[in-house]
Amino acid sequence: MAEATSRRRARSGGGAARRAERTSVKIETAKYIERNIPNFEVLSEEALGVIEANAETVLAEIGVNFVDNPGALQRWRDAGAEIEGERVRIPRGLARKLIATAPSEFTQHARNPEKSVVIGGKNLVCAPVYGPPFVRDVAGGRRYATIADFEKFVKLSYMSKWLHHSGGTVCEPTDVPVNKRHLDMLLAHMTLSDKPFMGAVTDPSRAQDSVEMCEILFGKEFVQNNTVMTSLININSPMTFDDVMMGALEVYAKNNQACIISPFIVGGAMAPVSVAGTLTQVLAEVMAGIAYSQLIRPGAPVIFGAFVSSIDMNSGAPTFGTPEASLVTYGAGQLARRLGLPFRSSGSFCGSKLPDAQAAYETANSLNMGLMSGVNFMLHSCGWLEGGLVASFEKFVMDADQLGALHGLAKGVPIGEDDQAMDAIREVGPGGHFLGCAHTQANFKTAFWKSDLCDYKPFETWEEEGARDTMELATDRVAYLIDNYQAPSLDPEIRSALLAYVAAKKDSMADSFM
Amino acid sequence: MAEATSRRRARSGGGAARRAERTSVKIETAKYIERNIPNFEVLSEEALGVIEANAETVLAEIGVNFVDNPGALQRWRDAGAEIEGERVRIPRGLARKLIATAPSEFTQHARNPEKSVVIGGKNLVCAPVYGPPFVRDVAGGRRYATIADFEKFVKLSYMSKWLHHSGGTVCEPTDVPVNKRHLDMLLAHMTLSDKPFMGAVTDPSRAQDSVEMCEILFGKEFVQNNTVMTSLININSPMTFDDVMMGALEVYAKNNQACIISPFIVGGAMAPVSVAGTLTQVLAEVMAGIAYSQLIRPGAPVIFGAFVSSIDMNSGAPTFGTPEASLVTYGAGQLARRLGLPFRSSGSFCGSKLPDAQAAYETANSLNMGLMSGVNFMLHSCGWLEGGLVASFEKFVMDADQLGALHGLAKGVPIGEDDQAMDAIREVGPGGHFLGCAHTQANFKTAFWKSDLCDYKPFETWEEEGARDTMELATDRVAYLIDNYQAPSLDPEIRSALLAYVAAKKDSMADSFM
Repeated sequence: MAEATSRRRARSGGGAARRAERTSVKIETAKYIERNIPNFEVLSEEALGVIEANAETVLAEIGVNFVDNPGALQRWRDAGAEIEGERVRIPRGLARKLIATAPSEFTQHARNPEKSVVIGGKNLVCAPVYGPPFVRDVAGGRRYATIADFEKFVKLSYMSKWLHHSGGTVCEPTDVPVNKRHLDMLLAHMTLSDKPFMGAVTDPSRAQDSVEMCEILFGKEFVQNNTVMTSLININSPMTFDDVMMGALEVYAKNNQACIISPFIVGGAMAPVSVAGTLTQVLAEVMAGIAYSQLIRPGAPVIFGAFVSSIDMNSGAPTFGTPEASLVTYGAGQLARRLGLPFRSSGSFCGSKLPDAQAAYETANSLNMGLMSGVNFMLHSCGWLEGGLVASFEKFVMDADQLGALHGLAKGVPIGEDDQAMDAIREVGPGGHFLGCAHTQANFKTAFWKSDLCDYKPFETWEEEGARDTMELATDRVAYLIDNYQAPSLDPEIRSALLAYVAAKKDSMADSFM
Repeated sequence: MAEATSRRRARSGGGAARRAERTSVKIETAKYIERNIPNFEVLSEEALGVIEANAETVLAEIGVNFVDNPGALQRWRDAGAEIEGERVRIPRGLARKLIATAPSEFTQHARNPEKSVVIGGKNLVCAPVYGPPFVRDVAGGRRYATIADFEKFVKLSYMSKWLHHSGGTVCEPTDVPVNKRHLDMLLAHMTLSDKPFMGAVTDPSRAQDSVEMCEILFGKEFVQNNTVMTSLININSPMTFDDVMMGALEVYAKNNQACIISPFIVGGAMAPVSVAGTLTQVLAEVMAGIAYSQLIRPGAPVIFGAFVSSIDMNSGAPTFGTPEASLVTYGAGQLARRLGLPFRSSGSFCGSKLPDAQAAYETANSLNMGLMSGVNFMLHSCGWLEGGLVASFEKFVMDADQLGALHGLAKGVPIGEDDQAMDAIREVGPGGHFLGCAHTQANFKTAFWKSDLCDYKPFETWEEEGARDTMELATDRVAYLIDNYQAPSLDPEIRSALLAYVAAKKDSMADSFM
């Protein structure tokens, strides 16, 4: 009784007690996944050869367009490509030769060195959803995203154990002018989290701002010698490289910052309806884009990207978590590895309007496929809803929890003596049970991945506690994580310098919402 | 206006019009999946060797128990095993030698020959959930299952395109006496569907009844020369073979009917907490069980089974769709293939109490793993809820729909000239779109798998139509399928003979609910 009373007093006892409770929340971040399992290889040697030869034909005979970018055309001409208007035809073998200088693996540094990630090889780095103009939660429904939503997502990423990366435009803060948004977004990533992040790509000048803010955060010399951002450069499929994206790529490559070069494919619209045809086009586009990055700066870190969805031929809507997208992704992973490049694909993709069963089926299909296809950088790994139009708070924590299952699967099957567990089988014997045996006691805490969100309770307990579905559990988890958020420490001088930079930049521009 | 009136009249115009509408519903059944993709192999040669050697050690040194079954002990003694009480120790190499007579592939005939299935090799046959004592739907909540529920599930299986098999105890019809249930269940499978099905295993006499009913349905000679049932024989893990299950196995093997020999593993309780340890035990158990089937009748068709879940060490509840279960399943598939046996595992496994996001994540994890691990017979491929305690009507149609995605993924990546789509890429060129090109027009109908249940509509349309989640869509789909159900035709004499057999059998026994 005394204990219960004193407990209650402590709980309601103001600031000190609450702080004490808060510090008991462990903010764990898992190391990026190091796969101890093979990749799933869906393409035969023959198929790989056909697709690679066809991609060279596309580059040499059809070519790609570099739009509004005379500098790019000149660089290509100097490198030996044929230029006709904005069309660049790349002789067989040239793109592959240029790509050879791109690293197969690179480190993206975080301001907290423990959270730096190595992108490439057997590794998988998970980053949250990117780009939605809307957010959704149970309390507020579907609405335009604001910078307050953005900051909330950055906090959730920071608090999520299985997320290795803070991402970029987790949602579009539509209440901030378009030409100033990137400043507030970067400031949030830099101050509210200590995980690695992405830079702005919506204008070359904003990419330059991103580099300059990183120079404040990391030091100028460090940024010139190290990669501290990985940014997303989309290709306008089919085979079009616009000046905005290429301008941002040029800034980042010059500064030795990493870019994902990513075709944006809705199969049937931006690429052929067949898997082999789509893979051919994806490979040609990525080869052209990555070759171009190496023309800017040989050795600049880049990632072979593939954003793939299918189309619903009835409604014209993109569809997600579908088998054809999975086949393209498996194949693209093989093509990337044959080029010796890190690979980006997959994510918490779904077309559903709500974080319901449809969303979860589609997302799980996509997440599993991402792990098995050898993805090295998984953008959109949590929070994606409604074809990417919406960032969902509840789905963010649901998906982020499921990423834990990928960590478990990636462990593979160790076969050390303790793993073999022959002593346990001998100890228990026919008809016994393993719950109390020495091997179980020694290993049960780490043996099984356990969800931090899903319900494992007996039916009766679950019913007594309100018969809550996953959505309700997720609502609670969002609140729990936000309530327990504590900002990582940051040198006050650096914080002041960042704030001053953002304020000065904002003052130098009129607001633009275009 | 006239047209609208006449339409309305036709719709409400009694039997003929309704029949006309009904016959427009196509009852399609997909052929069982023939994989054109590789299997995912998580175990190295070294790991396989270690596990196989350890399994032989388990059989030779620890042994297995055949309980209350002197006949079995005698058979084992005659075959060269050491018998001590009920313990059977099987010398190294003996089980493997006996297993060699089991076929690597067999045909299970359906009464509609178009729906016969080939089990083994690159094939995957999907069957519904098996065993739940409860059912659940939105209208009625969670309740004990009845024979009416059972019949409804058989109809849903019959109407589901991606289900190849009618299954067995889709739910337990608890309103029928235990000793008579199998008769009503078999009658439902035989008359309400023309897909292949499973026999009773709860008593050797019920297995015998199953054989006799099949002799009425297929003809006595046909049954003796062909496999017309695949039944589920669970092993009481660890390493215990009870007389009821073995008695049923003996009946089926003698009659050349197929059995799945399946350890029932909740990792941490019935097997060690480690993946390698669980695989060792699973292999030892399956080898003992399948070797025993071949002692009964060399050449009897059997399937290497593995039912695998983990345990939540907090609540003691089994958990599903977890990474450790996936790793065990991938490994078990490899071990089955090395023994040259068909493999059974996976399913729509989940621990969730509702068909919500948790259920769908867990299920999708498990279904994808099943395809990739080379499963040949997927029991529980739809409808499983709450750790198998509940068969859910809504989840049944959700999962059955997702099985379509597995069919799509299994197609792999064909690379014929049309698949390469080079003409399409040439025709469209940089900056164009593929929606109207000749290749898209020729292929769009079959290019992409499309859900029959999920929502792909634009947000505004979806909202206008009531903002329905997957559960509501599934409720509608259950009603649609049941409303459009038409029984497959059956020779009236056979039907009468089946009814007479069931009536006579029931009359011969007092009711038992034990």
